[in-house]
Amino acid sequence: MKADIVIRGCIILTVTGAEDVIRRGLIALKDGKIIYVGRDAEAPTFEADRVIDGEGKIAMPGLINCHTHAAMTLLRGIAEDKELDTWLRETIWPLEAKLKPRDIYYGTLLGCIEMIKSGTTCFSDMYFHENMVAKAVIKTGLRCVLSPGIIEAGRKMLGRILLRSAVNIIKEYGKIEDGRISVMLGPHAVYTCSPQLLKRIGEESLKFDVGIHMHLAETESGTATARKLYGKSEVELLGELGLLSPRLLAAHCVHLSDTDINLMAKHDVKVSYNPISNMKLASGIPRIKDLLDAGITVGLGTDGPASNNSLDMFETMKAAALLQKVKYGDPRIMPAKKIVKMATIEGARALGLDGLIGSLEVGKRADLILLDAKKPHLTPLHDPYAALVYSARGSDVSTVIVDGRIIMEEREIKTVNELEIISESERISLDLLRR
Amino acid sequence: MKADIVIRGCIILTVTGAEDVIRRGLIALKDGKIIYVGRDAEAPTFEADRVIDGEGKIAMPGLINCHTHAAMTLLRGIAEDKELDTWLRETIWPLEAKLKPRDIYYGTLLGCIEMIKSGTTCFSDMYFHENMVAKAVIKTGLRCVLSPGIIEAGRKMLGRILLRSAVNIIKEYGKIEDGRISVMLGPHAVYTCSPQLLKRIGEESLKFDVGIHMHLAETESGTATARKLYGKSEVELLGELGLLSPRLLAAHCVHLSDTDINLMAKHDVKVSYNPISNMKLASGIPRIKDLLDAGITVGLGTDGPASNNSLDMFETMKAAALLQKVKYGDPRIMPAKKIVKMATIEGARALGLDGLIGSLEVGKRADLILLDAKKPHLTPLHDPYAALVYSARGSDVSTVIVDGRIIMEEREIKTVNELEIISESERISLDLLRR
Repeated sequence: MKADIVIRGCIILTVTGAEDVIRRGLIALKDGKIIYVGRDAEAPTFEADRVIDGEGKIAMPGLINCHTHAAMTLLRGIAEDKELDTWLRETIWPLEAKLKPRDIYYGTLLGCIEMIKSGTTCFSDMYFHENMVAKAVIKTGLRCVLSPGIIEAGRKMLGRILLRSAVNIIKEYGKIEDGRISVMLGPHAVYTCSPQLLKRIGEESLKFDVGIHMHLAETESGTATARKLYGKSEVELLGELGLLSPRLLAAHCVHLSDTDINLMAKHDVKVSYNPISNMKLASGIPRIKDLLDAGITVGLGTDGPASNNSLDMFETMKAAALLQKVKYGDPRIMPAKKIVKMATIEGARALGLDGLIGSLEVGKRADLILLDAKKPHLTPLHDPYAALVYSARGSDVSTVIVDGRIIMEEREIKTVNELEIISESERISLDLLRR
Repeated sequence: MKADIVIRGCIILTVTGAEDVIRRGLIALKDGKIIYVGRDAEAPTFEADRVIDGEGKIAMPGLINCHTHAAMTLLRGIAEDKELDTWLRETIWPLEAKLKPRDIYYGTLLGCIEMIKSGTTCFSDMYFHENMVAKAVIKTGLRCVLSPGIIEAGRKMLGRILLRSAVNIIKEYGKIEDGRISVMLGPHAVYTCSPQLLKRIGEESLKFDVGIHMHLAETESGTATARKLYGKSEVELLGELGLLSPRLLAAHCVHLSDTDINLMAKHDVKVSYNPISNMKLASGIPRIKDLLDAGITVGLGTDGPASNNSLDMFETMKAAALLQKVKYGDPRIMPAKKIVKMATIEGARALGLDGLIGSLEVGKRADLILLDAKKPHLTPLHDPYAALVYSARGSDVSTVIVDGRIIMEEREIKTVNELEIISESERISLDLLRR
């Protein structure tokens, strides 16, 4: 049988069901898809252009980052340990107003190489100039869901312009690169978009059959503002406006009532849980266990690198588990295997991409990573799931494959010049402070 | 001027006071000590045996892990996502009963190489067969405070034997290796040591002028048991027994009343804050801000690798900050610089070693690390403290120097054979499950 790439001898976590650890496995890829995954001993003979020795490696689906603003790498470390409101108003928003499209291209490139080097193969990005994000994604070879940001903040005209520009992004990037890029609409939040604008966004999302990706119930003050302005919670308001649907990806969801959770479950709303950002900005601890118990799909996200300050999904997996355990006072909840699912197949489901990616199965697109397990901190390897969540680091990822293409091998990025991106984005970031 | 090692051109974080970031610095070492730290341009001319190019690197004091059980690497991943009591009784204690001295030697070696590779230069270890820990420390070149474990659990004879053996460790290892090894007494906890035994441990600690390192107020049930048995809190009981003193290093301290905190502050008790373990075992969130406000010295620890499951102090620094921010609902508390201090100079103070290590100052022992800052996730580098706490990984550490000796260079460990330790400890760990 012909294949483009064959990986032999690795431990495989397929993330498909109960019996999903294969100790001596083989994976074969062809035309960007997985054509075999299973025991090496039972595999057919493959004639492959490229055979990768997987001895001592763990193969798993690439990690899916459900919520970030990748270009904010440029703002990393500029204002630290501040209150969210102060941080946004005094530092982030004034600097963002100075960002040019080329800055966003480089900031995103920087985010992309950081993500590749820590095992992320797909990210869901919300920002301005998402055409520049698309350009960086095409260049680096990652998979991405673009969410062009829509914000009004009292300026109705701004909201209209941004919605129009978002619709143009759907038209231009909605169906390119063989599905490697897709688009959602990205209203910022209830407290920065009027009900009228949100309603129109809901209508456009139906018309173009795309999802909506927004911040929801992130802070106590935002939640209180909604209650004051509309006499209801953010979730209830979205319900009235027709935005609660299986295509809504709600980021954060820290401040929810039982009624909110029931409403979200009823409409099959998807959630991105971003534990590091929620802790760093002191937003609070979301009730993820309750969301899961209600049957809601929850993926994981890093949030932007200026409020994290990292895009490392391995770190996020560990924090995601630990924060829920300590919140509920129960070390048994959110076990390692569940967390790996949230970072892969459930993240894919949250983005509407679970038919395409999120697990290692024949027929799915070949988005996968290899980790080097011959490391002191991964020894002994009794439980591969626990090792991935509690012990592994992004830096253990040796090889990254997206859509059947090797974009990093033995930690060397194959698609772009890493050092050039580091120095150019550093230059831009310093220049930004002087503008 | 003569020197053994000179490092040039690096960013230096001396961790000594307000003006402690040197952008183009030089560090000179001789006879295991720091003989110069300052601006490269102002440095005297050194004739050095070895010049290290520090361009693009950050130099800082080696990290100090105030609380671990290094040999428990062998038990990593054996029983995950369990309740503490079940985990101890059904898995950990039965397996520990089967551990032989050589196992502990290899388990500690494994822990040591993990610590070296993530930038720890000194660790405070509590376990059995601490002579084997000393052997591993001498071999790998790390610095260590040995705390031979003393546990009674209703068997008075056992307590007496372990105390005697701990006193022998003091006699044998208290004054060797030029202070690279020191000793404390390691009573397990109030709920596993009788008041009589604790009192005797207090007396021995005075007699030999050594510290006491114990678990304190870790779990809600332990705290409730003390209250039931003695009608007082664990801290109050230790006060009555004469154990509260500047030489007491109390690990965890999750369940404390205001009275406890005042008592601890009055006696200058030291604390090891172990955020990852507290979250993973769902022990609770300690009131570190309140401890600091009361003037108590707090260092950071990982706890054992079976309840973490990592010995990475960079991860611990980030979790230490984030967990307090979300607990107190204030992103401004525990800023990055404070956290770096806790992981270095305040950790040294907690171990009674602040005269020797914990900052980069002329006259101190040369325990320092270099990080490679030319990484996407460390770009841009506006704020070195924030970068170290929120963005850096243990894997960014390129070079580790302890007592003036290079024990890792460009990620290659110089003192022991890393791969041999990985495979032998893996073999032992598998064998342990079959015994």
